[in-house]
Amino acid sequence: MAHSEIKALLFDVFGTVVDWRGSITREMQRFGEAHKINQNWEQFALDWRALYQPAMEGIRSGDRGYVKLDQLHRENLQQLLHGYELEALSETQLDHINRVWHRLQPWADSLPGMNRLKKNYVVASLSNGNVELMVNMARHSAIPWDMILGSETAQGYKPQDKVYLHGAQMLGLKPAQCMMVAAHNDDLHAARSLGFKTAYINRPYEYGDSQARDLEAEEPWDIVGEYMTDIATGLGC
Amino acid sequence: MAHSEIKALLFDVFGTVVDWRGSITREMQRFGEAHKINQNWEQFALDWRALYQPAMEGIRSGDRGYVKLDQLHRENLQQLLHGYELEALSETQLDHINRVWHRLQPWADSLPGMNRLKKNYVVASLSNGNVELMVNMARHSAIPWDMILGSETAQGYKPQDKVYLHGAQMLGLKPAQCMMVAAHNDDLHAARSLGFKTAYINRPYEYGDSQARDLEAEEPWDIVGEYMTDIATGLGC
Repeated sequence: MAHSEIKALLFDVFGTVVDWRGSITREMQRFGEAHKINQNWEQFALDWRALYQPAMEGIRSGDRGYVKLDQLHRENLQQLLHGYELEALSETQLDHINRVWHRLQPWADSLPGMNRLKKNYVVASLSNGNVELMVNMARHSAIPWDMILGSETAQGYKPQDKVYLHGAQMLGLKPAQCMMVAAHNDDLHAARSLGFKTAYINRPYEYGDSQARDLEAEEPWDIVGEYMTDIATGLGC
Repeated sequence: MAHSEIKALLFDVFGTVVDWRGSITREMQRFGEAHKINQNWEQFALDWRALYQPAMEGIRSGDRGYVKLDQLHRENLQQLLHGYELEALSETQLDHINRVWHRLQPWADSLPGMNRLKKNYVVASLSNGNVELMVNMARHSAIPWDMILGSETAQGYKPQDKVYLHGAQMLGLKPAQCMMVAAHNDDLHAARSLGFKTAYINRPYEYGDSQARDLEAEEPWDIVGEYMTDIATGLGC
């Protein structure tokens, strides 16, 4: 297909650009060793992430006004304290743990692919993470965003239409001039329904051995690749 | 003074980071030569900029809903077409001229200073320029923003309070954790009144030989410098 109309790439981030499961597991393993807390920290990461969609649903449905993801993460963390022996920690320590999402590390192929893409296209995040989280993550991990868009600037949560449409609008672009890049079929489905181009990256280990969804492209997305560098190659970068 | 509380630097852009007068003059001189239009293009740049504040005032006052700066620039350009022999140009050509604001070049000291500052602080724009304009300018001139804030994300125009406060809020910071960097005393005055720290850069040639304002710091700003690198030095970077 011809991609000459595309001006910007909008990226999902958690799971697509960065490895939240591995990053949280590694950091909590170090934390656990330092604090003599012996737990299955990979399961902790998975349990924390499992509370993510339900927490956003209250805001999407309108039952609750917009609050940013840092706050939802903190509320969700609260539910895990007892099960993971974290109840005795101070608020400062818990805030540090909560901000592990600000320190997530990219998959090995992410920066090589994104740095190639950035030469020819605007690269912007379109994540459910809030701005501060995304700014800190980018500074921590050298993610070369031209702009941070998504949930907080649009005051909603994907897959709400307004998050995608506000992102394109802020860049002065029509949806067809934007390509959504994600490892999640539902994210691309929502973007495509609004006229966005779509690129799927296969991340079958995002959730570890037990991953049951997003094991392959479920629709004929405009580009399908195993790595971010495949997206760059697909766009001639 | 101690600056340990500061986490982010928020920059005015037109005149502070980039030289709009020189950039527009140079590009229009080349355009004039190519199209056999002989005009005083520095005066054109000054006349265009002189329409900037009046155009924003209608939005600040509430007489007009928010429109982005690209549109105000285009409306203002329309008023100059007759006087500068630009009436015969196509809409495509006029759009290209209007987007000269997307291609402004930094003062010589801006990037050296900002790249030093970025190592220790979040660096974000807090300009009246719209997001697309700022993204394109950053890509054109290698300006190392961590985030683009200001007018369009806040849906207002400086010196409206909400533009400054929304910028700090998006970064998850209190005003006192942010330092506004500008070559304009009124911009810093507005920021300081809301609790921001302030850094003044002297740009006495922003408007050329005839400059009548902002020839010096008019209040005891937290940092005062001749160059962006002085701000970096002042903050220990």
